[in-house]
Amino acid sequence: MGRNLLIAHGGGPTSVMNAALYGVIRECEAQSDVAEVLGARHGIEGVLAEEFVDLGRQPAAVIDALPGRPSSALGSCRRKLSDTDYEQIASVLESYDIGCFIYQGGNDSMDTAMKLSRMPEAERVGLRVVGLPKTVDNDLPETDHCPGYGSAARFYAQVARDMDVDNQALPSPIAVLEVMGRNTGWLAAACSLGKDTPEQGPHLIYVPERPFDDASFLADVRDVYNRHRRALVVVSEGLVRNNGIPVYISDRAVDCDDFGHRLPGNVGKYLADLLGDEAGLRARNLKPDLWGRSCAMLQSATDRDESIALGRHAVQMVVAGWSGIMLNLVRTSQEPYEFDIGAVALEKVANVERPMNS
Amino acid sequence: MGRNLLIAHGGGPTSVMNAALYGVIRECEAQSDVAEVLGARHGIEGVLAEEFVDLGRQPAAVIDALPGRPSSALGSCRRKLSDTDYEQIASVLESYDIGCFIYQGGNDSMDTAMKLSRMPEAERVGLRVVGLPKTVDNDLPETDHCPGYGSAARFYAQVARDMDVDNQALPSPIAVLEVMGRNTGWLAAACSLGKDTPEQGPHLIYVPERPFDDASFLADVRDVYNRHRRALVVVSEGLVRNNGIPVYISDRAVDCDDFGHRLPGNVGKYLADLLGDEAGLRARNLKPDLWGRSCAMLQSATDRDESIALGRHAVQMVVAGWSGIMLNLVRTSQEPYEFDIGAVALEKVANVERPMNS
Repeated sequence: MGRNLLIAHGGGPTSVMNAALYGVIRECEAQSDVAEVLGARHGIEGVLAEEFVDLGRQPAAVIDALPGRPSSALGSCRRKLSDTDYEQIASVLESYDIGCFIYQGGNDSMDTAMKLSRMPEAERVGLRVVGLPKTVDNDLPETDHCPGYGSAARFYAQVARDMDVDNQALPSPIAVLEVMGRNTGWLAAACSLGKDTPEQGPHLIYVPERPFDDASFLADVRDVYNRHRRALVVVSEGLVRNNGIPVYISDRAVDCDDFGHRLPGNVGKYLADLLGDEAGLRARNLKPDLWGRSCAMLQSATDRDESIALGRHAVQMVVAGWSGIMLNLVRTSQEPYEFDIGAVALEKVANVERPMNS
Repeated sequence: MGRNLLIAHGGGPTSVMNAALYGVIRECEAQSDVAEVLGARHGIEGVLAEEFVDLGRQPAAVIDALPGRPSSALGSCRRKLSDTDYEQIASVLESYDIGCFIYQGGNDSMDTAMKLSRMPEAERVGLRVVGLPKTVDNDLPETDHCPGYGSAARFYAQVARDMDVDNQALPSPIAVLEVMGRNTGWLAAACSLGKDTPEQGPHLIYVPERPFDDASFLADVRDVYNRHRRALVVVSEGLVRNNGIPVYISDRAVDCDDFGHRLPGNVGKYLADLLGDEAGLRARNLKPDLWGRSCAMLQSATDRDESIALGRHAVQMVVAGWSGIMLNLVRTSQEPYEFDIGAVALEKVANVERPMNS
């Protein structure tokens, strides 16, 4: 009988974090080297507070429902960790006899996983840490794509496709669709996936990787509108100007995350208003917002299956003795699409962002 | 061989207008009293411009795809008709030998249908006019519910359900979900359809039928937040204060429809900002907006089937000689849900709105 395995979630949830959790639980059942499989409530917060769920003793119906259930069933958190926190984490893990820790999250979380794996305490107690990638923004490097992105991409592609059909019904509509993506435009770009002809929307897509300019924007929309008598304009929530300043951002003190970053949002309304004020064009704005990461109906089956496979593989790797790595998706064939699972050192992904033009 | 039948769409599209169109086309095929079935492009605009589609000569694949395709394949319009317009419509209908006119729309459109049916020219040329109800807002009287409402209700109920699951993942989130509904709260109320327990969101729903008060709103949200450590707040786009003034509305000249009505929108952002400013609570706002009427994935099968049946029935009624009526849905059994199709005089619905407290 081996030692215990812990799984925790970090950062914003996705449509398929629970699918990876399902893979972890099912694989642990198959591994004699794992004694108990525990889940931390609300990520690292739950580790610090010793709030664990015994995942091996949940009703079968709850476990079986996990793959199709978006969000994080365990709960997640965004916490900036202090040195004392790290020491406490190591001490909690030791006291629960946790030899394997699987942490799923974005690049902040991979930084946490890396630091944990490198602690002297980790070596002393034989703790192994393996990271699982996850972001709807798709901004993690060293993986073909991030689990969670596929479902969110499908969601926003569907919004764009449906809205262009809607826009064809009434004369001369302009819609500005705001899409998630704090620093990268992967999700905004995905809005073109349902486009079959150049006449179809989205007609314009603006991403954070390209500095935004008001005059060009107004000219672009006018031009599209004159040609098609409608315009579906997609904008990333994180658009910035040439000077790096966000095109629109709340100046409210409450609108900051725990890392002190100002939260983006409502640039779509700002730009729809700009079209009214500066170009005399009536524009609606849409902001499906976080529903893009939690829409049960538009979860991607490929995204779900890859996440289950990643969860299983993470258990196999950590049990086999690996530590300090993040698993990744490797595209082995484009047509038909096939993938394999590999691994990279955590230092290659911790705090690193992958923009579209990289 | 009979005379020709015309179908046209008025007002904003819904998820199931094309389903009714499908019913009309299929029933016309079965009726020897109908010579040709024509569709007007962009509603009354297409009648005035003599832009008709020969619906009997479309590829079978196009017709078969109609029921599952949201929006209006014919196109719709919002046009305030003058006396000259009415005369021109009568003259166009006569020159195309149109004896039957089916007009699907909201209460503005039912007013148009009524006026057309009462024109002296209508009697002279033997024109019969039958209205089909349609609104996502569900604000038409004299029908159990409006075709289009069921799908939009399903959409917003799903947003609310998914977002509450998302909100449970991270600590202390507050979300303000803006829902369609210019003057009535039917769609906002539908957000509670996916709620199984009192702890689940939506925790608060604000509708236009109840005057909105800032202080009560702030106190309500604070109270929910203190109890649940999260709050999902649903607001109708058309919220008004005690004095009848909208809680938030654009003051831009372009943000008016062709009837001169100011278009609602972004009250959700306004209220999320208010929570930050007045209560120090960080709140996100969501605005899925018109996607609620055009989301292909969340079309309701019941809504679709009822619309097909209404389309078929409209042809039967107008061919049988009826005119000046709107077909309606009559609930004949609650459990299991069963419906029948009836009819009311157009004057009972023209320009009449049905709020929730009626």
